[in-house]
Amino acid sequence: MIEKVFRDPVHNYIPVDDELIYKLINTKEFQRLRRIKQLGSSSFTFHGAEHSRFSHCLGVYYLARRVTAIFDKKYADIWDSSESLLTMVAALLHDIGHGAYSHSFERLFDTDHEAVTQDIILNAETEVNHVLSQFSPDFPEKVASVINHTYSNKQVEQLISSQIDVDRMDYLLRDSYFTGASYGRFDLSRILRVIRPLDNGIAFSIDGMHAVEDYIISRYQMYMQVYFHPASRAMEVLLQNLLKRAKYLYPKEKEFFAITSPHLIPFLENKVTLEDYLSLDDGVMNTYFQSWMQSTDKILSDLASRFINRKVFKSVTFDEGSSSELKDMRELIYALGFDPEYYTAVHLNFDLPYDVYKPDVKNPRTQIEMLQEDGQIAELSTLSALVHTLSGTIHGDRRFYFPKEMLIQDDLFIDIKEKFACHIKNRQLHKTQIQDK
Amino acid sequence: MIEKVFRDPVHNYIPVDDELIYKLINTKEFQRLRRIKQLGSSSFTFHGAEHSRFSHCLGVYYLARRVTAIFDKKYADIWDSSESLLTMVAALLHDIGHGAYSHSFERLFDTDHEAVTQDIILNAETEVNHVLSQFSPDFPEKVASVINHTYSNKQVEQLISSQIDVDRMDYLLRDSYFTGASYGRFDLSRILRVIRPLDNGIAFSIDGMHAVEDYIISRYQMYMQVYFHPASRAMEVLLQNLLKRAKYLYPKEKEFFAITSPHLIPFLENKVTLEDYLSLDDGVMNTYFQSWMQSTDKILSDLASRFINRKVFKSVTFDEGSSSELKDMRELIYALGFDPEYYTAVHLNFDLPYDVYKPDVKNPRTQIEMLQEDGQIAELSTLSALVHTLSGTIHGDRRFYFPKEMLIQDDLFIDIKEKFACHIKNRQLHKTQIQDK
Amino acid sequence: MIEKVFRDPVHNYIPVDDELIYKLINTKEFQRLRRIKQLGSSSFTFHGAEHSRFSHCLGVYYLARRVTAIFDKKYADIWDSSESLLTMVAALLHDIGHGAYSHSFERLFDTDHEAVTQDIILNAETEVNHVLSQFSPDFPEKVASVINHTYSNKQVEQLISSQIDVDRMDYLLRDSYFTGASYGRFDLSRILRVIRPLDNGIAFSIDGMHAVEDYIISRYQMYMQVYFHPASRAMEVLLQNLLKRAKYLYPKEKEFFAITSPHLIPFLENKVTLEDYLSLDDGVMNTYFQSWMQSTDKILSDLASRFINRKVFKSVTFDEGSSSELKDMRELIYALGFDPEYYTAVHLNFDLPYDVYKPDVKNPRTQIEMLQEDGQIAELSTLSALVHTLSGTIHGDRRFYFPKEMLIQDDLFIDIKEKFACHIKNRQLHKTQIQDK
Amino acid sequence: MIEKVFRDPVHNYIPVDDELIYKLINTKEFQRLRRIKQLGSSSFTFHGAEHSRFSHCLGVYYLARRVTAIFDKKYADIWDSSESLLTMVAALLHDIGHGAYSHSFERLFDTDHEAVTQDIILNAETEVNHVLSQFSPDFPEKVASVINHTYSNKQVEQLISSQIDVDRMDYLLRDSYFTGASYGRFDLSRILRVIRPLDNGIAFSIDGMHAVEDYIISRYQMYMQVYFHPASRAMEVLLQNLLKRAKYLYPKEKEFFAITSPHLIPFLENKVTLEDYLSLDDGVMNTYFQSWMQSTDKILSDLASRFINRKVFKSVTFDEGSSSELKDMRELIYALGFDPEYYTAVHLNFDLPYDVYKPDVKNPRTQIEMLQEDGQIAELSTLSALVHTLSGTIHGDRRFYFPKEMLIQDDLFIDIKEKFACHIKNRQLHKTQIQDK
Repeated sequence: MIEKVFRDPVHNYIPVDDELIYKLINTKEFQRLRRIKQLGSSSFTFHGAEHSRFSHCLGVYYLARRVTAIFDKKYADIWDSSESLLTMVAALLHDIGHGAYSHSFERLFDTDHEAVTQDIILNAETEVNHVLSQFSPDFPEKVASVINHTYSNKQVEQLISSQIDVDRMDYLLRDSYFTGASYGRFDLSRILRVIRPLDNGIAFSIDGMHAVEDYIISRYQMYMQVYFHPASRAMEVLLQNLLKRAKYLYPKEKEFFAITSPHLIPFLENKVTLEDYLSLDDGVMNTYFQSWMQSTDKILSDLASRFINRKVFKSVTFDEGSSSELKDMRELIYALGFDPEYYTAVHLNFDLPYDVYKPDVKNPRTQIEMLQEDGQIAELSTLSALVHTLSGTIHGDRRFYFPKEMLIQDDLFIDIKEKFACHIKNRQLHKTQIQDK
Repeated sequence: MIEKVFRDPVHNYIPVDDELIYKLINTKEFQRLRRIKQLGSSSFTFHGAEHSRFSHCLGVYYLARRVTAIFDKKYADIWDSSESLLTMVAALLHDIGHGAYSHSFERLFDTDHEAVTQDIILNAETEVNHVLSQFSPDFPEKVASVINHTYSNKQVEQLISSQIDVDRMDYLLRDSYFTGASYGRFDLSRILRVIRPLDNGIAFSIDGMHAVEDYIISRYQMYMQVYFHPASRAMEVLLQNLLKRAKYLYPKEKEFFAITSPHLIPFLENKVTLEDYLSLDDGVMNTYFQSWMQSTDKILSDLASRFINRKVFKSVTFDEGSSSELKDMRELIYALGFDPEYYTAVHLNFDLPYDVYKPDVKNPRTQIEMLQEDGQIAELSTLSALVHTLSGTIHGDRRFYFPKEMLIQDDLFIDIKEKFACHIKNRQLHKTQIQDK
Repeated sequence: MIEKVFRDPVHNYIPVDDELIYKLINTKEFQRLRRIKQLGSSSFTFHGAEHSRFSHCLGVYYLARRVTAIFDKKYADIWDSSESLLTMVAALLHDIGHGAYSHSFERLFDTDHEAVTQDIILNAETEVNHVLSQFSPDFPEKVASVINHTYSNKQVEQLISSQIDVDRMDYLLRDSYFTGASYGRFDLSRILRVIRPLDNGIAFSIDGMHAVEDYIISRYQMYMQVYFHPASRAMEVLLQNLLKRAKYLYPKEKEFFAITSPHLIPFLENKVTLEDYLSLDDGVMNTYFQSWMQSTDKILSDLASRFINRKVFKSVTFDEGSSSELKDMRELIYALGFDPEYYTAVHLNFDLPYDVYKPDVKNPRTQIEMLQEDGQIAELSTLSALVHTLSGTIHGDRRFYFPKEMLIQDDLFIDIKEKFACHIKNRQLHKTQIQDK
Repeated sequence: MIEKVFRDPVHNYIPVDDELIYKLINTKEFQRLRRIKQLGSSSFTFHGAEHSRFSHCLGVYYLARRVTAIFDKKYADIWDSSESLLTMVAALLHDIGHGAYSHSFERLFDTDHEAVTQDIILNAETEVNHVLSQFSPDFPEKVASVINHTYSNKQVEQLISSQIDVDRMDYLLRDSYFTGASYGRFDLSRILRVIRPLDNGIAFSIDGMHAVEDYIISRYQMYMQVYFHPASRAMEVLLQNLLKRAKYLYPKEKEFFAITSPHLIPFLENKVTLEDYLSLDDGVMNTYFQSWMQSTDKILSDLASRFINRKVFKSVTFDEGSSSELKDMRELIYALGFDPEYYTAVHLNFDLPYDVYKPDVKNPRTQIEMLQEDGQIAELSTLSALVHTLSGTIHGDRRFYFPKEMLIQDDLFIDIKEKFACHIKNRQLHKTQIQDK
């Protein structure tokens, strides 16, 4: 085929010269990713981060293309070049099951974007499956197994999913570019120069140790600064509380929801088909929320309005064992007329920035291996003091969210608000000293 | 107030330390701009260009803030620093009336985003008006007059709207950043160093001549390469034909549209209030188009599906005086079963990259003035050979759009398609030689 | 060989995996380029522009490597891949004959860096010749002929030297990067995507028309803004006057020059060997000038001191036919005690940004050809209005340089200085009106 | 004065609008910094890193200007704005005593660039002192005391010199830009937004914690990857051995050195004046080395030639307690005809990336203080796990350098070379196992 090219702000030009890839991009399931934001509610905090999952998936494909082109050319002895196309296809499709505001949505409606990804690839009704099957009848199964971590070739699997894979490399660069955060950048060129296939996986030449270290640090910083940003999580808990209210109201307000939000009905009824799932996207959800603003239910309309007009909840961090203070705060919030069920939330965000392989844990990590001059391999954290620090330790925080109104010191309810303020110091929940008598 | 800051990929940090500005940003009318893409259908061509009008408007405010800060500090003799806040507010709000897919929409439904901008600022029902009026009762009128080009102070007006203004400077940089096109960049720092207030307008020190020249060239290149891209226009004509079909069907299918697209009804009925206008955004429109895909009208459902799934029309450029060839092509298209009314379109895009002041034309341009060492001013095109070339000349093309199916050479209808292909050469309409008898 | 890699700020990583290239880089003649600045006296104006010819030559090699890799892979039918190594070698060595402050030096001492380049390649005494001959006895001749424009394969020749070649592409990007000027950037990736070998030369696919246009504009802007900068030229004329004074003094001060500047003697004696030429570099020249600051000749020591300590001459532009004004100004300068022979200069800088092929002129240009969809070619300026404007027209200015002291208005010699000032308006020479009697 | 502006690739434009600053830049002592590379022998490894100390000093001035402008505007209650000019001047001049290849040179000739800096500022013979004294008679002393860490205002002192100061911030960004290394970048805008004067020093708002953390990590990475690069250190030890040989030869070859390297004589004689010191720069030194290539002393001429033509020594890392292996290797080197005194070297590079204030150590560090919402301060490493890891720990390595010839496996001396190779494994010195009998 004649090469097509996509102009991409992160990778400059993304070429497509394989008919299969081009057809997959043009399926309706893949085009749908244009209507789903990569970072969901983060765009309310970082207004540049409106980029779609479509752009991320193209980027992941592109990185897979670059790596496999290097492997094909330089490491034909140890890399089977007939795996390259499969790798690119799996890269392109790895996120195809993502839905609107996935994280919040899945929590409320018991869906699972990974299962949907498998379904889109394997279900004979989809255009994606049709294109893959036409290429070769066993191709859908192969692609699904790579994404599912059950494929036999560990080289392919680790390129697609490991602690340093084409997915993470693209999203760090891309999210950094679109948010404007300076943290997610790392030396991609260097990493592409030092990546090597091993017999049963992937390694990196020791020459690139500092580039790999920098990638781990960058990823850590993006989690701390961008992905775990308190304001984005404020929008996430608002959304969860809104959907929770909708679920609660649905049994008695079926007609209202049928008119305002028809494609949500299967989720509210808990009878969801793949087609139902694919009919939702960010725009559809926002359209529904906008109509809910007209609801006669005060809580539903108020939460919808707060979400649409970005009235974020405020928050404090807290430690385990603060339940009495949280209880107290919830009561003060209730005293001001807010139902704590819908106007407060606890939100935990934790990440394990890196870990060595631990066979006994659930979903053990594939550790990052560095290849030395004499062919021996060494695990990354044994070489890098910084990675060693991050290895095996989780980072993040617990936050308690509440309406901004609690902090506005006006004359009304001044007593309640002052009591509330006493619980907060330096943006943290302030543990009350229990006085001995 | 405590300074707030927005992380912006183009300008890095955008600080807000004025209460009025902060309140305006938090109005629902301004937040709504988050749901409207800056470049409309261009994001189908440049997948990075998902950025919103919200981000552009913040950027324009930021540039106004930088320019007025310089004027306040350095040119207090000739610049009235009490105009600075007004300038920033006008910059922030200049595009607030933009709607979903404005250009196509306005053509079909006779709306006008500039009139809506005035309305949002002046209409006592809006939060924007409320905030402005609270600040000062005459402020809505003043802001509206700046945007409306009727304000008395020409310095302010030219900063907001002229051939080199804060609006254009932001959108060139921003659209360049998000599309990934390399063309729109220019030396903003230099331009901010050389911009000067005059008694009745704005000028630029001669030291910055090449930076201003480069800005004009960059703008020209962005028009040719990005804004006039044939594929984006293909989506635009598709959208126009889709809306045209909806208008045609509406009288006989009122119920269908009432259910699938309630907020469009006032437009189809031609009874539009400001609230109706503000209830539409990109996501709402796309949600409606997605439901139209289920219509029993083949044309409506097919066009909706083409738009949602990005099945772009193809095109050729043509010259005036090609009507007989176009007529012939439309007949061949009809012969293949496509109604030319909805499956073809003529689309013209022309821009006047720069012009000198011409008092006799409609909407004369404010020419760009360069300030020389001795205080004399000289018009830009007298100094720059490149700008002189572009001055007063329009650039762009005429395109004829048709379904991609016309170019796919398969066995079916081979005769018709071959005849059709004869009309095209090097992507242009090929003028048939008229044979003498 | 094991691939070596050079970290390059412009192209990121420059890999070398050919033994021949690596050996050439390690010759003493090539390493010498580290000691010669790419932009000579421009670093006095743009303090970041300290980059060496070494870095530029590596960059040119790198671009030749990228282009030939594309040609080898995609256009093997029309491009002879056995020419690739030759192309890279010619790219690497094209500037190897450059000397310290080449332009000024050549004017004074009748040397010619192009002839020296040929000599270094062909002279059996050099390490470069040794490496090339070892590779193949006829290789020095082949490389020299490519650089000399006499090689039979016009594809190779045009890659190395034409209006859009690997040399110019590297220096625009590199000089832009190191000066910090924003003008020299263009879309290199795009140009590499559209470059094509023809039977007897090079063309660019029509898809890249705007990228090629942008390259021409960028080059024009770099000439106007950076290469022709008045302050850099001030240092150049200072250097020329300094060397002129040395030449004048040499016959009577042979011993002084033998001690202070031994490697200049062959040039002052006009008996220069290749070894003599190669013994000079920027550091050696500056070292000599620093010792000349101790000369008993007031003019020599003063000019040397002005050069070393960056006391730039001032200048005005002037038109042809200003000889009477210039004569007048020189007299006023003389009246203040400055010998016009050494304290003034006329400096012309003109560039022809683009031209079509004109067989009758001396050194006709190879015009830039755009390849259309049907295989026809079209010359660039027929497609681009901007290039058409620049085509065949020369741009630049004439400047008259004089000591800064002429402009300092203190009490001494106030009359003379006022008369002098009358000749200048808006940094231009002000033509005196000749009064009719 | 009329504002002057320097085009800077790192900071874009550097404005100068203070007469004093402008005059200082134009002194011969400051202009001399143009002839001294910021990174000395690193440019042999990173060919882009030819940037001068002149550019760095301007950059440090610029950052001081930005910080003090913020302090003047926002923190006038706690910052004395009459200190701003002093801060800028100290920033500009902090490195003015640096000489050619300072580190190697100082080791051999017992000079001290910090003492020279004081001397240039205080010595009545210099133009710098003249300009400062003219401004105010006590200004030289004040500037010198800031640089000397004895000034009373700790805010000023910490801005100029602490673990996060304008010097380090500029060199990280600058060295990163010119080497092309991706590591040295950090979020300068953010740090400038959060820097605050305290009563007796400088702090950073807690909001910028991650930016400060990132700066510490970036600095660490630049040390590991750029400043401690083995190849740069190879050139440094070569230079040291070369100068050592010159010192050794000088007593018997006085005339040779008087002719070839006149300005080194005071150093070889150990009778150095400030003028002598200032007469040396990178170009002068290289000129001398080039003439030494003609020496009849084989070692001097060979080492000079290796330095000029970049024939780097190779190296291995080793641990303390490897003296027997090193002894063995030196003997093998000697057996191949190389005098280990001049053809080997041990080079240690260690850095302490961050430390808290430790009153008992020599030169205790000023720890980095973060300012919390309630006004309390917290030391950085108590907040950042990454900084905590680096705090108080030194990083770097020991290297043993030797001629590359030892590793070239040809037929000659194959036995010696094989023995030598046994000492090396994975680029490290391989500890021989001592066998028990």
